[in-house]
Amino acid sequence: MELALSTTLQTSFTDAVTRTRAALQEQGFGVLTEIDLQATLAAKLGADMERYLILGACNPPLAHQAVTANRQIGLLLPCNVIVREHPTTVGAVLVEAMNPELMVQVTGEPALVAVAADAGRRLQSAIDALAASTQ
Amino acid sequence: MELALSTTLQTSFTDAVTRTRAALQEQGFGVLTEIDLQATLAAKLGADMERYLILGACNPPLAHQAVTANRQIGLLLPCNVIVREHPTTVGAVLVEAMNPELMVQVTGEPALVAVAADAGRRLQSAIDALAASTQ
Repeated sequence: MELALSTTLQTSFTDAVTRTRAALQEQGFGVLTEIDLQATLAAKLGADMERYLILGACNPPLAHQAVTANRQIGLLLPCNVIVREHPTTVGAVLVEAMNPELMVQVTGEPALVAVAADAGRRLQSAIDALAASTQ
Repeated sequence: MELALSTTLQTSFTDAVTRTRAALQEQGFGVLTEIDLQATLAAKLGADMERYLILGACNPPLAHQAVTANRQIGLLLPCNVIVREHPTTVGAVLVEAMNPELMVQVTGEPALVAVAADAGRRLQSAIDALAASTQ
């Protein structure tokens, strides 16, 4: 199992974030949380790193199905989507969504299989749409 | 591997949240995000469920070590801690932290072993402190 569903965009970081939010919205995922990891680690530690955002994406009907299947699944919600500058290639931005299949793998919960598959199809569609948009 | 490091508190939901935040702070974890899943699913779907918060806990030095070891680990950051009313026992509140060992299990990344162990020890200490505080 791949940990991430991912693509690389040739665009600015800001444009990649805007497009990622739109692609997620198109698949029914709202962004509930946003962590600027670069800014957080700079402020707390004075550490230097490339731009790196962690978006917490939530599709409410799927989240509801997931917690109905397994009350502990909030440990892996919302579904993280990271948008980060490529560490070495200038002008390249990586967009990586957590593979929802992970929820099944780590819980062994059969009742999560269908909802994880649905979430995975939607996130893959969002990633595919992003990839297609820059070709 | 257990998915969660957890305890059950006999107290009000609000008090459990306050104590959980304090116990995390004591171990160097700030709460960067907070999702009220009950309110979110009520607003979006009209769904009814018990009180359920997802706190995104981050210990900056450990987060920095983790992304230095594996740039994709933001998919599993921050470390979720859920505080939720027991589904059937009135007056009981569950506090469950994602077991950081999960990061090693799903990535197979040897460079994450030490940082996951450190995070796990700290979160277990926070859970133990919460459990002791209501005895």
